[in-house]
Amino acid sequence: MPTIITLLTDFGTADGYVGEVKGVLATAAPDASIVDITHDIPAHDVDAGRHTVSRYWRRFPPGTVHLAVVDPDVGTDRSAIAVASDGQFLVAPDNGLLSHALLQPGAQVVRLAVSPGASPTFHARDVFAPAAARLACGATVASLGTIGHDPVVLLTPEPELDVTGAAVGQVIAIDRFGNAITNLMAQRATRVHVAGRTLKIVRTYGHLDPGEAGALIGSNGYVEVVVGQGSAARQLGLTKGAAVRLS
Amino acid sequence: MPTIITLLTDFGTADGYVGEVKGVLATAAPDASIVDITHDIPAHDVDAGRHTVSRYWRRFPPGTVHLAVVDPDVGTDRSAIAVASDGQFLVAPDNGLLSHALLQPGAQVVRLAVSPGASPTFHARDVFAPAAARLACGATVASLGTIGHDPVVLLTPEPELDVTGAAVGQVIAIDRFGNAITNLMAQRATRVHVAGRTLKIVRTYGHLDPGEAGALIGSNGYVEVVVGQGSAARQLGLTKGAAVRLS
Amino acid sequence: MPTIITLLTDFGTADGYVGEVKGVLATAAPDASIVDITHDIPAHDVDAGRHTVSRYWRRFPPGTVHLAVVDPDVGTDRSAIAVASDGQFLVAPDNGLLSHALLQPGAQVVRLAVSPGASPTFHARDVFAPAAARLACGATVASLGTIGHDPVVLLTPEPELDVTGAAVGQVIAIDRFGNAITNLMAQRATRVHVAGRTLKIVRTYGHLDPGEAGALIGSNGYVEVVVGQGSAARQLGLTKGAAVRLS
Repeated sequence: MPTIITLLTDFGTADGYVGEVKGVLATAAPDASIVDITHDIPAHDVDAGRHTVSRYWRRFPPGTVHLAVVDPDVGTDRSAIAVASDGQFLVAPDNGLLSHALLQPGAQVVRLAVSPGASPTFHARDVFAPAAARLACGATVASLGTIGHDPVVLLTPEPELDVTGAAVGQVIAIDRFGNAITNLMAQRATRVHVAGRTLKIVRTYGHLDPGEAGALIGSNGYVEVVVGQGSAARQLGLTKGAAVRLS
Repeated sequence: MPTIITLLTDFGTADGYVGEVKGVLATAAPDASIVDITHDIPAHDVDAGRHTVSRYWRRFPPGTVHLAVVDPDVGTDRSAIAVASDGQFLVAPDNGLLSHALLQPGAQVVRLAVSPGASPTFHARDVFAPAAARLACGATVASLGTIGHDPVVLLTPEPELDVTGAAVGQVIAIDRFGNAITNLMAQRATRVHVAGRTLKIVRTYGHLDPGEAGALIGSNGYVEVVVGQGSAARQLGLTKGAAVRLS
Repeated sequence: MPTIITLLTDFGTADGYVGEVKGVLATAAPDASIVDITHDIPAHDVDAGRHTVSRYWRRFPPGTVHLAVVDPDVGTDRSAIAVASDGQFLVAPDNGLLSHALLQPGAQVVRLAVSPGASPTFHARDVFAPAAARLACGATVASLGTIGHDPVVLLTPEPELDVTGAAVGQVIAIDRFGNAITNLMAQRATRVHVAGRTLKIVRTYGHLDPGEAGALIGSNGYVEVVVGQGSAARQLGLTKGAAVRLS
């Protein structure tokens, strides 16, 4: 079976930038299979990209190459990196996008060389895609760059305990449905407090009436604030960073 | 040639849910080829998903597996199903999304088991993708679940005849261009009446002047209300369910 | 390695039209690999499609088949064409979408026959996809249609020199980030004049402060007007055709 190269960007698709990247990959790694994750990360939103990468990268077969580019500082002195972690390979700008993979035990990272001919505005095409293609063709991470690089790691904030011993966390992402995903693991909690409301914890979206707000344990184990057939973000006015408390 | 697994969801792509599903498929069915249909079905709009599935599912080679998930009731007591119909396989929540395939003569349907470890909020990843992967690897529909299940079928409303013998139907979908697709087959009709207007039937969009409203026989045989280089939905104020009459 | 068929349309994906096209391709060219470029070209915007095609078509391996459909005049007397250019194959309506490939030395073009059964509103499915599949299966361009056809070619406007000898060009595309791409090659220029502003030329986006306007040489060699972490189009009120002068 062919190696997979997955793609995540904030490029949209209409301008053809993703097309250029795919052309480079198809030429340099003709046996690889290209799988789109998304090109709809909000422009320049490294943190949203980081959150999305953390969801999917380990779900793929060993040896998969994940190319991820949200890169507001392309062409500046920010580094370009390749990572081997948990049997997967990842290539990205060194801005925290790959934090989840970098934090795994045994993760290896190298700083990629940038060839003089690379466009300073399009490293996805001229730096990251060629590196991803080489990994897909069997190159080792170590062969692609210099070791000893200290990469940027962005951490999801940890919940804290308030004076009553209740866990206080925050919204770390709003998804397409308006669900507000938090950094809280619920365990024995039975109530969620957010935006001046106390919400019961239900098993799934459909156990709420239309328009009713509630909370549940999402598919990655974190508490989500949700609304039956609606958007919790809009209805409760939630944005990233909003405080959420368990009891 | 590898088996194809097609994907239709209302997940968007930015949050990484589709990435997770693709990772599960690539791991469990490494020889299959994943083909995106869309991830832009309006959130929770089962009927829009049903209409879209009906367009493409029979266009693929025999043995293709179609994974379709628009699933507002995920994790409730709604069933999960796999279907064999007309040489194709389909996997989806049992909410009418697969109606067109279920209505074909000889269609077989089974109710999928939900493993206790499945997230109640993400059956696409934990129930449907594993079932689709097994079908892509050669499993039979019968081997995936229990037969004798009576699936939900949603029917497109049938046109009626008014006192003059004219066929009266309705708009059943609005497409990206603002074309209003109806449930009417035109045959000998020469005029279409909609929103207080009488429209001539033309052969194609380009036979209308810019901004001119008209009707034509769409690519699946149904009457469409259209506007030259514009949106019929916006210009004529059409939404799903709007009455359309032939004469 | 399998032949690649790339897809560019203005169809969006939600309605299933792209799904139908992919089904036709997968059936008629089962060994080909389908690569999405975009389905988000603005509806009917042939010029935007032309600009996007020009970016990616030559990046793919020799023998790749590029299917491109932005086709407001589908089903009228506009022709359908297949092109061989620079080792690549392209199939599209004859409306200028393939101009960049047609302008290469040695480009070959044929006019495709339209079978009587083709829907006059969906040539992507019934004319272009079957032709692309035949090319992917090894057919020659000459075998697909009639030679001697004189195709429509749209030209990007050339910059002019003003009385001071300065090059005056225009914005030819606005990308997803709001960057305004011009038809100007910069060479020795050091200043860009646009919308009553004089902008310095920087090396990359990140060398501008947030909200600061500037210019740079984009990844295809053309001057872009940009804003640090923002949209030049919005901030400077730029649209296609806006005048841009170098000095």
